[in-house]
Amino acid sequence: MKMARLKPPAALNMPIGEAMFSQRAIRRLDPDRAISDGDLKLVLDAASKAPNGGNVQPARFLVIRDRQRIAEFGELYYEAWWAKRKDAYGWEPGHDIPAESPYRMASLMADELRHAPVVILSFGVPGGFAGSVFPGVQNLLLSARALGIGSVLTTLHPSVMDRVNGMFGVPSDVDFYCCIPLGYPRGNFGPTSRFETADTTHWDQWDARPPWAE
Amino acid sequence: MKMARLKPPAALNMPIGEAMFSQRAIRRLDPDRAISDGDLKLVLDAASKAPNGGNVQPARFLVIRDRQRIAEFGELYYEAWWAKRKDAYGWEPGHDIPAESPYRMASLMADELRHAPVVILSFGVPGGFAGSVFPGVQNLLLSARALGIGSVLTTLHPSVMDRVNGMFGVPSDVDFYCCIPLGYPRGNFGPTSRFETADTTHWDQWDARPPWAE
Repeated sequence: MKMARLKPPAALNMPIGEAMFSQRAIRRLDPDRAISDGDLKLVLDAASKAPNGGNVQPARFLVIRDRQRIAEFGELYYEAWWAKRKDAYGWEPGHDIPAESPYRMASLMADELRHAPVVILSFGVPGGFAGSVFPGVQNLLLSARALGIGSVLTTLHPSVMDRVNGMFGVPSDVDFYCCIPLGYPRGNFGPTSRFETADTTHWDQWDARPPWAE
Repeated sequence: MKMARLKPPAALNMPIGEAMFSQRAIRRLDPDRAISDGDLKLVLDAASKAPNGGNVQPARFLVIRDRQRIAEFGELYYEAWWAKRKDAYGWEPGHDIPAESPYRMASLMADELRHAPVVILSFGVPGGFAGSVFPGVQNLLLSARALGIGSVLTTLHPSVMDRVNGMFGVPSDVDFYCCIPLGYPRGNFGPTSRFETADTTHWDQWDARPPWAE
């Protein structure tokens, strides 16, 4: 395959701190506003620039733009989303999720994915591992955020993978990593809540805290 | 643990496209130029802002700054690096790697890691998976790049993990993900060569190419 040495796209001019610190899961996507092929190329170019082991570049992306296929895939996504919740909590599809659960908001995506203007599935060809795929996924998500395009990193339950692979003709030796709906947000980007790094950072030894811990 | 809602740090003002498209593996690190605790906090804050499943935030980071501990860890890193090459190619430590191999350059890190000013090990507590750790690792690497700090995403061979965990008191239920040396570069950031996304992108179906393919 040909190699490219790309220059930074002028459209990706948002300060990196602003993009990182305002990236949040966007699950309510505008079904009527298309994402241009140029912007899709741009976020995929950004993904390609991420680190990967030995420059083997195992990451592959399936871009789903056809509305009928997204609607059909959305049915599988809905089934997969609830299958994960059934495994973890015994919930049936449509279960009334407690308001304090982080899955209350996440369940929105199970309903809405079928209306997303674009869905990207991330895969890896043999010889890769997660550390050569997810950094590129994060470049894709961050560059989408810089373009004002919303997304969320989601997965699929193993019970639907045969049907997903069959639907799109994915070869059997290719590994699935994650599912990335894309669209302009109905709603806002903004701050997220995270643990303070004083509590997630260990300093020279697991039982020692960093200098910025109280 | 307490949660924080952080504002974008003013120091992370590099355009995101410039950071992404000039990020490259930096393996020759300046041993005499320290990285400040403030900059370490900043790149760890950036890591914390990445997406993760259900906001469970399983990622944990062990920051190794003590020079003696880095020197000792560097011995294990050297052993682990060559153990991976032995598994893959039967090479013994110090093997004369063919000039065309992608591991020719990578072997530099096996020699140099012991002199890195900082090494960060990335872990995950139970309940996490790679997709909730590597996006944060990429935020860490990109924000380091934006500060002019070089790095490379590396792994460790399973044969050294018990000794690494013992050395730093890492609990047995914590999963290791990757090893991140950090330092100011002896050398330059710059463009990387990557496959054209026309060849790594599939369009609505695995056997269909995107509109920007020739």
